[in-house]
Amino acid sequence: MQRLVRSARHKPLALTVANNSNRSTALNFATRYMATMKALVYSGANRIAMQERPKPVLAAPTDAIVKITKTTICGTDLHILKGDVATCKPGTILGHEGEGVVAEAGAAVTRFRPGDRVLVSCISSCAKCEYCRRGMYSHCTSGGWILGNTIDGTQAEYARIPHADASLHAIPEGVNAGAMVMLSDIFPTALECGVQNGKVTPGSTVAIVGSGPVGLAALMTAQMYSPAKVVVIDTDPKRLEVAKKLGATETINNGTDDALAKIQDLTGGKGCDTVIEAVGVPATFDLCQKLLAPGGVLANVGVHGVPVKLHLDQLWDKNIAITTRLVDAGVTPMLINQVAAGKLRPVDLVSHRFKFSDGEEAYRTFSQASETGALKVILKMGNNSIH
Amino acid sequence: MQRLVRSARHKPLALTVANNSNRSTALNFATRYMATMKALVYSGANRIAMQERPKPVLAAPTDAIVKITKTTICGTDLHILKGDVATCKPGTILGHEGEGVVAEAGAAVTRFRPGDRVLVSCISSCAKCEYCRRGMYSHCTSGGWILGNTIDGTQAEYARIPHADASLHAIPEGVNAGAMVMLSDIFPTALECGVQNGKVTPGSTVAIVGSGPVGLAALMTAQMYSPAKVVVIDTDPKRLEVAKKLGATETINNGTDDALAKIQDLTGGKGCDTVIEAVGVPATFDLCQKLLAPGGVLANVGVHGVPVKLHLDQLWDKNIAITTRLVDAGVTPMLINQVAAGKLRPVDLVSHRFKFSDGEEAYRTFSQASETGALKVILKMGNNSIH
Amino acid sequence: MQRLVRSARHKPLALTVANNSNRSTALNFATRYMATMKALVYSGANRIAMQERPKPVLAAPTDAIVKITKTTICGTDLHILKGDVATCKPGTILGHEGEGVVAEAGAAVTRFRPGDRVLVSCISSCAKCEYCRRGMYSHCTSGGWILGNTIDGTQAEYARIPHADASLHAIPEGVNAGAMVMLSDIFPTALECGVQNGKVTPGSTVAIVGSGPVGLAALMTAQMYSPAKVVVIDTDPKRLEVAKKLGATETINNGTDDALAKIQDLTGGKGCDTVIEAVGVPATFDLCQKLLAPGGVLANVGVHGVPVKLHLDQLWDKNIAITTRLVDAGVTPMLINQVAAGKLRPVDLVSHRFKFSDGEEAYRTFSQASETGALKVILKMGNNSIH
Amino acid sequence: MQRLVRSARHKPLALTVANNSNRSTALNFATRYMATMKALVYSGANRIAMQERPKPVLAAPTDAIVKITKTTICGTDLHILKGDVATCKPGTILGHEGEGVVAEAGAAVTRFRPGDRVLVSCISSCAKCEYCRRGMYSHCTSGGWILGNTIDGTQAEYARIPHADASLHAIPEGVNAGAMVMLSDIFPTALECGVQNGKVTPGSTVAIVGSGPVGLAALMTAQMYSPAKVVVIDTDPKRLEVAKKLGATETINNGTDDALAKIQDLTGGKGCDTVIEAVGVPATFDLCQKLLAPGGVLANVGVHGVPVKLHLDQLWDKNIAITTRLVDAGVTPMLINQVAAGKLRPVDLVSHRFKFSDGEEAYRTFSQASETGALKVILKMGNNSIH
Repeated sequence: MQRLVRSARHKPLALTVANNSNRSTALNFATRYMATMKALVYSGANRIAMQERPKPVLAAPTDAIVKITKTTICGTDLHILKGDVATCKPGTILGHEGEGVVAEAGAAVTRFRPGDRVLVSCISSCAKCEYCRRGMYSHCTSGGWILGNTIDGTQAEYARIPHADASLHAIPEGVNAGAMVMLSDIFPTALECGVQNGKVTPGSTVAIVGSGPVGLAALMTAQMYSPAKVVVIDTDPKRLEVAKKLGATETINNGTDDALAKIQDLTGGKGCDTVIEAVGVPATFDLCQKLLAPGGVLANVGVHGVPVKLHLDQLWDKNIAITTRLVDAGVTPMLINQVAAGKLRPVDLVSHRFKFSDGEEAYRTFSQASETGALKVILKMGNNSIH
Repeated sequence: MQRLVRSARHKPLALTVANNSNRSTALNFATRYMATMKALVYSGANRIAMQERPKPVLAAPTDAIVKITKTTICGTDLHILKGDVATCKPGTILGHEGEGVVAEAGAAVTRFRPGDRVLVSCISSCAKCEYCRRGMYSHCTSGGWILGNTIDGTQAEYARIPHADASLHAIPEGVNAGAMVMLSDIFPTALECGVQNGKVTPGSTVAIVGSGPVGLAALMTAQMYSPAKVVVIDTDPKRLEVAKKLGATETINNGTDDALAKIQDLTGGKGCDTVIEAVGVPATFDLCQKLLAPGGVLANVGVHGVPVKLHLDQLWDKNIAITTRLVDAGVTPMLINQVAAGKLRPVDLVSHRFKFSDGEEAYRTFSQASETGALKVILKMGNNSIH
Repeated sequence: MQRLVRSARHKPLALTVANNSNRSTALNFATRYMATMKALVYSGANRIAMQERPKPVLAAPTDAIVKITKTTICGTDLHILKGDVATCKPGTILGHEGEGVVAEAGAAVTRFRPGDRVLVSCISSCAKCEYCRRGMYSHCTSGGWILGNTIDGTQAEYARIPHADASLHAIPEGVNAGAMVMLSDIFPTALECGVQNGKVTPGSTVAIVGSGPVGLAALMTAQMYSPAKVVVIDTDPKRLEVAKKLGATETINNGTDDALAKIQDLTGGKGCDTVIEAVGVPATFDLCQKLLAPGGVLANVGVHGVPVKLHLDQLWDKNIAITTRLVDAGVTPMLINQVAAGKLRPVDLVSHRFKFSDGEEAYRTFSQASETGALKVILKMGNNSIH
Repeated sequence: MQRLVRSARHKPLALTVANNSNRSTALNFATRYMATMKALVYSGANRIAMQERPKPVLAAPTDAIVKITKTTICGTDLHILKGDVATCKPGTILGHEGEGVVAEAGAAVTRFRPGDRVLVSCISSCAKCEYCRRGMYSHCTSGGWILGNTIDGTQAEYARIPHADASLHAIPEGVNAGAMVMLSDIFPTALECGVQNGKVTPGSTVAIVGSGPVGLAALMTAQMYSPAKVVVIDTDPKRLEVAKKLGATETINNGTDDALAKIQDLTGGKGCDTVIEAVGVPATFDLCQKLLAPGGVLANVGVHGVPVKLHLDQLWDKNIAITTRLVDAGVTPMLINQVAAGKLRPVDLVSHRFKFSDGEEAYRTFSQASETGALKVILKMGNNSIH
């Protein structure tokens, strides 16, 4: 199905419309005929382009079309640009994060109506396959991470969202949606892959290796479970300062200090109950293994491109667990509740804001984080303001 | 405390007795004075000796002395003999498995009295330290695996058991203790480190890599949770035959067959929900990673001497867990219940029986399993019979 | 939606067809025009009638029409006949259990195609609402128990199944479907509400109060978790005999014996870790409270019509839990696996078989179980055989 | 053992000393001979007396004698005074809460030495029996709630603590012990019986019925799990004001308002995920049942003197759980960590402070809470200050 849609995308407009749902009327046919939109397109290794593209149309009765109001850029988008993600072909509209308003809903969509304010999940989920029934939406047999990967994504004025009922979330009235787009990916990732997999509990000790946006989101969501200590480890003193502000009980600059020695010191020689790997390279994974207390969990969040060494000779009798996970985004409704209740401030991770038309500059800013100090950047559609 | 006792062990007998508890009377002083016993002693790399040694005496009010009736040999004992276990010094009596009868109980022992029939746990547990309170008896700060390692063990006519109340288990009347000694280590190890860590559940699919005694015990205890499939993988056709008899739904000889291809075939391409590593070398750990289904658990049981390669580049998004564990033996009372209820037959793993006086031959038989077909061997004290 | 459909049911056929999906062609219009079917209809208190009714048609793109091959009768159907179930109006086709073949699938149904052999779940589930996402399909905001209750059910030659993708389950090829219909309700109910809620684990002790079909199914599924003891309590000696055959380690006739005294005796005075209430009257719930060990769970399965007395004055410090549940049927795919693997024999609960045309007699037999010895009865469509 | 000690209590002093451990020397015999202490003694229904009593002595090698520095009064102490607690006989020293310094430690006590600053747990635990191994310390076969109940308690200058190693907790250096005595009972009770049994999780909705000290401690500890809403319900406007200050997101005065209607309103008609009963009478338990959402947990904390009505006719299909529990105090070390980490302020529940010599006045103040506004009162030994 998705393949059909993707080829349709490049066909003459008339044909695209012919594929459309039978709810079309002469009126919206006309509207659509004119309709193109701006989109950030992956154009081959290291090339991104703001292009004029046909607006997407419903391709299945379970689809919705969302008018995107805000989107953001993920580390994974940079990986795609580097050519590291084989599943994403040149010509694909980037982006798997977004908030917006439902523009059109397929005949089988029952939970959303045009006009509804929604958050787009980075994970599309049919809700019915074996994996979805187990809450492993990331492994949905007809979904998972497809937006901005195997199908067009959310860095565009409109996006087609397959399996809309289980892949969009209503943003409740009265909730300030200022940075709600942070809940599309980074907060569920940090919470599920890091904090929940890592079994953070009241009174426990937590080390987070890596204070990029995901590491910081792990720091913020870890505090939902009231650990006694959350230590953040990184080599960038500016990010460690941010970590301190966001609640780290200690920070360690492992460019200048011996992280293992400091953790041993802070934990009475035991190590940490939870160690969250939020970088994705062998050296940090190695450090994480050393920081782990007997009975602890090493929760991997980083995206790894090569194998790592696992010190089973030292760990075989240490009663530990190592976990991996692609975000399932099952916690997203809960996170929306927490934002609504004033208990989580996703806006704290937003360092820069751009108009969508300045998308290429936003990519530059985000990709040169060490110079720009970028954490997360928000791209806002429309011309009025960046807020 | 344990250190004092160990040095005392080699002092003249009079001194040992002087250290004894104030419950001694002239009578048992005399008895003890005479008292020596036979013991299998680690005598340096590749050397084992049946020696005459002083009978152990109470060294703390929480100790008990157990008259051993049956013991067995563990793969770890062979590791010690090879000189691989640095914590175990020459001169130590081997063995951490045993059943017997309480001969003497310290003043603070409340759960056992002389004459009680008991199983000796391979794990000694104070029950009160931070780890014991979490059920991680293996990491007891004054216990853990100490028998036949840092203190004298159970391959002897008598053994001193520290923290007796939490380190011995009553064998209920009427239970045929024929092979109860299998519950000292191998069954709790297989169940806790393999089956429970691996989250075997009704209807799930399980692969066990390695059909030595621990792998087979994992096969037997996995069936307590009614998985739909339990596939056993090994290179030894004789052991695979045993696996079939003990309930394996399939067996794979990965010396001659492609285990990955067969598992893919048996699971519709998904892999297994639980993969139990019961060998302890890099090649088998590598295979285990490949056999794992999304959402699965790789439960390591094998003792590893070197680091292994972890394919995080393939596993980072697969929602899996890898677990390690030194047996805690928290399940031992439950396993005793299951034997009493006729629901577990530990005797099925016993391939050979010896008189204790033939202990050196028993070691030879066990260490040359590929020729002798040995699974577990039982050594029985006394001269009458081997049953 | 369901309301519209229900009123449509009684309108002239032409109108019903007009509501039909746009996939209709002249041909199947003609077929349908002729199409009526036999159905067992609730016709007001204590009245059931085999009627000729129009065949159901698709009413939403997520619906499927299933040609029923086998159905069965549930205790709840008898409650409806007594007039106890206010949500079920006279004129409703009864039944929420069935197996069959997909006859037609709506445009948004992706998991099933005409010709697929399927099991109908007693619970219809949209898979997308807040409750479904938590696995609480029973509380689906547009589903739950609706078949044979608020909409027409499965005791008919055809049934419309809303939310077909998540409410039907494929029956794998090669699986003997002889009694697969037992998995529509009774086995998931026993397993989820009784065994899983009751936390049956290896080595635990279980009491099941009530040996009707659900109690017996609890007995059968409890054994998937290898409890040391499963004691079944009832007043009917014939059913207790069946319980013995199906694996009860003990049975107690509490018409003639003191169940509490016997349980105390069997458990060394402690009581049972799990007590499953499978009757639904105050007296049995009262007994269950008394049988519970400290730390135990009383898992209620029975349908209760009146409040009961809870002895909190005796239970407040006993660390127990009492659970209730309407079956969610989340375990059904697993149960199908277990039947396919030969590890569960649902046929063991089938006492009688009828042709569907003898449906009224089947009801009589089932409702007079104490005379007829009925457990579950199977009604088979078609005229050839009852198997 | 305990029985012997209790009868010894009333014998002439010489005899008491004769029962003493054999570590006594002539010197400490003399010291003890002189030694009496002040103690608050239950003297029969409605009578309490400050008496001069012999200082306690070690009765088992696992005992410790603690010099009490602070104690407090519990609602249960008032129950005893009313004559409601049959297990507590006149002549018993009251109190099961206390902090102090170890004065003497039995020969088998390994975790504490004289001079150690300790918290006394309200639950004494052998750590080794079947229940203790499951973490159900409250049901310890030789412990549980015995202090100030079946043996002399902590409202005295000295107290004998059986099973000292698992029944005392070290107070870390540098921790302000100002109100640490709040962790003897009320905080573990609120956390274990209310919050943990009630499965409070991030984003969930919680109702606490009763804003006495335990209800307020539940409010404080619930926040460790970041629920979206915590609603406190009581009839006392002053206590509701305290609840507001301690973090209640809403309060309801159910003397003047319709609690059910307000909860329905606050939860969109669903009810609460967790309802904590912290009163202990049928009317509040009844209210709690009504406030429960499908899938929710009613965690009973209140001590009930009579049976209650359970509306199983309305709850049987609601997928709920009702839990009871006597505090196990397994969380106490974690709570001490949280106080040390500055994440919990037990002092917030202290409304009054007294010198121990004013103990009878303290009882009056605490028992007339509606006039005095008392929450928890601290009694301090020594004459210098009440802090």
